Amino acid sequence: MENYPSRLLENAVNELAKLPGIGRKTALRLAMHFLRQNPADVELLCDALTDMVKNTKHCTECYSISDKDICDICGNQKRDKSVICVVEDIRDVMAIENTGQYRGVYHVLGGIISPIDGIGTDDLNIKPLIDKVEKGNIIEIIMAFSTTMEGDTTNFYLYKLLKKFNIIISTIARGISIGDDIEYADQVTLGRSIINRTLYENMLAESGRR
Amino acid sequence: MENYPSRLLENAVNELAKLPGIGRKTALRLAMHFLRQNPADVELLCDALTDMVKNTKHCTECYSISDKDICDICGNQKRDKSVICVVEDIRDVMAIENTGQYRGVYHVLGGIISPIDGIGTDDLNIKPLIDKVEKGNIIEIIMAFSTTMEGDTTNFYLYKLLKKFNIIISTIARGISIGDDIEYADQVTLGRSIINRTLYENMLAESGRR
Repeated sequence: MENYPSRLLENAVNELAKLPGIGRKTALRLAMHFLRQNPADVELLCDALTDMVKNTKHCTECYSISDKDICDICGNQKRDKSVICVVEDIRDVMAIENTGQYRGVYHVLGGIISPIDGIGTDDLNIKPLIDKVEKGNIIEIIMAFSTTMEGDTTNFYLYKLLKKFNIIISTIARGISIGDDIEYADQVTLGRSIINRTLYENMLAESGRR
Repeated sequence: MENYPSRLLENAVNELAKLPGIGRKTALRLAMHFLRQNPADVELLCDALTDMVKNTKHCTECYSISDKDICDICGNQKRDKSVICVVEDIRDVMAIENTGQYRGVYHVLGGIISPIDGIGTDDLNIKPLIDKVEKGNIIEIIMAFSTTMEGDTTNFYLYKLLKKFNIIISTIARGISIGDDIEYADQVTLGRSIINRTLYENMLAESGRR
């Protein structure tokens, strides 16, 4: 039981503590920060949040978040529409875009299969992906999920749905991270990195690849 | 350089990342959370924050945050107004109230002397504290600051201002925390805990003290 000196403060802390990763102590620290700020700063934040939740759209092609009906990537004529990289959410799109190594398009599932969080296949944008592949003109589907139980489950579920089509189905490479020490790598990663070894001439040519 | 797929999202992330302890990755995670929420939830949060920053007051007696002009503690006739515990902010008031060990009143400085953060003595509610003591009827001032350089500086500054008055000036005890192992205690704390040792009979009687 906390003794909040103000009901308004307690109310604000209650709302802030609903956010993921923010406990009551952090919520109180944030509330104190807002109290020290100019009320105009709180307005700026609230306007930005309200504007975002009310006006962002989902791209009708790839389900990424966008200000328009078609996002900048799907709308870019230079992107290869025959290669689709399937990701969990837009943070993965941003991460892959930052590498500058990919010129295909994306398909954002809006989550990952996770029975423990109550996220099943019907909660994800899987049907539109299958529809795209059925329409044809797709050469490759790259599955880019985290190397977790949920990621592996989603990989396998999509693979079962997609294998009947005449397309290449790939996943991003698992292996030793750049700068990592082999002796400290976990056994599964090291094992996979040997099984899925890369031809050295391909490695040398890497900087020239897509 | 991040490639945000939406300007509205980027704007929200920019505002969230201004909050203390929230970097751009956490800000993006929070923004994604808001996008998954019902817009009404964002409204609830914004209403709570706006209501708080617009309508909370500072108690005119102790400068604590309150919904009224006089806070519940200062307005409580059972609290001993002759003993004032000086603290940095209301989180300290809440922490001390939670102990149930204190029946005096508080004086909230609204910060702590910290030249590195640009907080000087003029930014704190020090003058009103001196005024209270000058008016008389004060028996003891308890300084309850964190055991940091800034806390010690504030202790010493207040002590210099207050020592000319005929009052008791004390600080909260520094010592070994309950449940702490002596061999892992730092030297300064252990040293102070020996210098400021407590009579065992006082320790035994502790539960009966104020």
